[in-house]
Amino acid sequence: MPVPHLTADLSGPIFDLEKRILDAMPTIEHWLRKQWVEHAVPFYCSVDLRNSGFKLAPVDTNLFPGGFNNLNQAFIPLCVQAMMAAVEKICPDASNILLIPENHTRNTFYLQNVVTLQAIMQQAGLNVRIGSLLPEITQPTPITLPNGDMLLLEPIKRSGNRLCTGNFDPCAILLNNDLSGGVPDILQNLQQIILPPLHAGWATRRKSLHFSAFDAVAQDFAELIGIDPWLINPYFTSCGKVNFHEKKGEDCVAVAVGEILREIQEKYTQYGVKEKPFVIVKADSGTYGMGIMSVKDSSEVYQLNRKQRNKMATVKEGLQVSNVLVQEGVYTFESINQAVAEPVIYMIDRYVVGGFYRVHTGRGIDENLNAPGMHFEPLAFDTTCVQPDRTADPDAIPNRFYAYGVIARLALLAAAVELERYAQQTAVLSITTT
Amino acid sequence: MPVPHLTADLSGPIFDLEKRILDAMPTIEHWLRKQWVEHAVPFYCSVDLRNSGFKLAPVDTNLFPGGFNNLNQAFIPLCVQAMMAAVEKICPDASNILLIPENHTRNTFYLQNVVTLQAIMQQAGLNVRIGSLLPEITQPTPITLPNGDMLLLEPIKRSGNRLCTGNFDPCAILLNNDLSGGVPDILQNLQQIILPPLHAGWATRRKSLHFSAFDAVAQDFAELIGIDPWLINPYFTSCGKVNFHEKKGEDCVAVAVGEILREIQEKYTQYGVKEKPFVIVKADSGTYGMGIMSVKDSSEVYQLNRKQRNKMATVKEGLQVSNVLVQEGVYTFESINQAVAEPVIYMIDRYVVGGFYRVHTGRGIDENLNAPGMHFEPLAFDTTCVQPDRTADPDAIPNRFYAYGVIARLALLAAAVELERYAQQTAVLSITTT
Repeated sequence: MPVPHLTADLSGPIFDLEKRILDAMPTIEHWLRKQWVEHAVPFYCSVDLRNSGFKLAPVDTNLFPGGFNNLNQAFIPLCVQAMMAAVEKICPDASNILLIPENHTRNTFYLQNVVTLQAIMQQAGLNVRIGSLLPEITQPTPITLPNGDMLLLEPIKRSGNRLCTGNFDPCAILLNNDLSGGVPDILQNLQQIILPPLHAGWATRRKSLHFSAFDAVAQDFAELIGIDPWLINPYFTSCGKVNFHEKKGEDCVAVAVGEILREIQEKYTQYGVKEKPFVIVKADSGTYGMGIMSVKDSSEVYQLNRKQRNKMATVKEGLQVSNVLVQEGVYTFESINQAVAEPVIYMIDRYVVGGFYRVHTGRGIDENLNAPGMHFEPLAFDTTCVQPDRTADPDAIPNRFYAYGVIARLALLAAAVELERYAQQTAVLSITTT
Repeated sequence: MPVPHLTADLSGPIFDLEKRILDAMPTIEHWLRKQWVEHAVPFYCSVDLRNSGFKLAPVDTNLFPGGFNNLNQAFIPLCVQAMMAAVEKICPDASNILLIPENHTRNTFYLQNVVTLQAIMQQAGLNVRIGSLLPEITQPTPITLPNGDMLLLEPIKRSGNRLCTGNFDPCAILLNNDLSGGVPDILQNLQQIILPPLHAGWATRRKSLHFSAFDAVAQDFAELIGIDPWLINPYFTSCGKVNFHEKKGEDCVAVAVGEILREIQEKYTQYGVKEKPFVIVKADSGTYGMGIMSVKDSSEVYQLNRKQRNKMATVKEGLQVSNVLVQEGVYTFESINQAVAEPVIYMIDRYVVGGFYRVHTGRGIDENLNAPGMHFEPLAFDTTCVQPDRTADPDAIPNRFYAYGVIARLALLAAAVELERYAQQTAVLSITTT
């Protein structure tokens, strides 16, 4: 099984970073254990990482992971075991879970993810039924996937403050739908546990709040193992009230781009990095890589053509972009057969259960790899992220994957902190309004 | 990878048992989750099972498992992940663990287990040092194993109520030593956590108390899934004050053997089993298969020759047999290349992390396979015990292994209950004596 190799020179900062992570392993694991006493871990999570050879950082944290089918089948038992730990916290009196997926009935890649997730939960001993939010699903609808797998979409019924399908009364609802289109009425004020909580959906979530939480996590972690936090943390800022259609708020974005480019250049100079800094401008809410652009000069913000403006002005399910995240771009120097590769790490509860590379031939090393219509090739990790080998080089594959698992768990921790903050806000708001 | 096949006809009770276990999976997993809320799970455990084709039952529950090296290397990540869950409960403020192994410095099979266990704990992010109870280990002593692996035995020092090795101050002590020779003074009244607790050692433990706890667990489980508890539970009774050297207490043993043989025959008749019932007589404390005999008639108890009497009169480390367990023998009908095979299931915390077959060519299907000097061939399970396949037959390998994992967890639960009872006794005793 081939694994992407890093085209960057590995005698520099990343080698040192991987070495420090490996050396500090007991310190790191102990620190993480303490964090999970203080912060409620999200049910599941995937994190997109970028490894530039001089920097290893998360660029996106997904609380509704949609690629369980891309994981190495050999390590699905890790998912089952972690799922057993995750479900211990919910449903003390039952074992029925209703899984609500995205409304993509034709995306067989995504549906394969739903099938895999359902199988993992069933193997962990749960009864799992799939409830669709689609109005056209009015009766149980079997869908057969290209590989022969079958899934059954069922209409969701609400009775009082409970959701059910048919005569199946779940004790918890697991969302695999990121609520980009807002929180549907049928999910409001339910008596059942909803996981992740509704405020984890893109109707509420802001990337800037995630990365603000990550700032603090990265700072603490950097102190813990004695590194420059920049090595694991991209610079960012955000702008509100942006409307690319009406050319409103562009000044804020242009100024932010300029500032971040300057900050990056300082670090590049400090570390002797020869590349040209770039910045990613993206919607502060939403997913699926819509509304994302890569910029190397602040003037580019003013020079968007109509097509680019349209692309930037909407994200998934028509959500209007108005808050914008301006984030340091991290080069990806991992490649396989000249194709750019970006690692994605999967977690269930606090456990790293696997990962894969998103391999894309038609994209540059400074572009976003998770863009609409881009059918990347998934390349499953050939080992787990939990078996570092301290007798091997810090950049040996099991050690690199361990480092990926550590950085991904920092993003998971940031997501935990972020979700706590929304919950507090909601609590404060409900006190204020009553 | 070959897996033993069952020579028994699989249309009978075991097929039905496996089917019921598979069908009741969500009920079972949910029930087990509830048990672990009520009972503290042992740190780790291995369970010897026997599958007779009409019965699947635990015959030995080891709280100091010594065969981690026999597990499938491909699934060691499951051990690492479960170890992470296990250590969360201990050492909130540190990550240093002292592992105390058995005093077998020449048994390379056992030492390979210690190396594997240390590696699992290290990969879970712990600092692990190995402290030897052997008086001749007066300085750090490296031992190189045949496969090139190295382990370092260090002398244990006690300072006040803490154990340490060199300048290594552990927050917890993990015993991989079953204390057959009693609890050494150096381990008494320690300030550090000891896992498993000292009363889990053979100086305290009684198999009869384990199987008495298992009786209740098996009864509850049988009601849960609607089966005859006998299908998973061997009959047993115990005799005190037995001295095989001096021919004392033999009447009790002979009467017990006769009674249990009668009870087994009743069940064999009920289920149409044609085999001849047999009974295992073994020391109520102790391990490593010493002091074990297989009996098909109560008269055999009186007809032991001197060699057999010597064998029955002592177990590991010279412990004198005086309490004796008389237990229904369970045939093993699993075999590979005509060799008898007995499954052993490994658990860390509440997770089934793997298993192997103990394959022995020179033994009968009605004999004990874990006997002194018997170098069985371990055959690692080729799949995990956590991926049952409900679309396959109930006796398909992943489903059979799932059933093994369920029955093993029942024995684990019985061990939890058993340990609670010793702890309560100790508490009562210390109140009585003060």
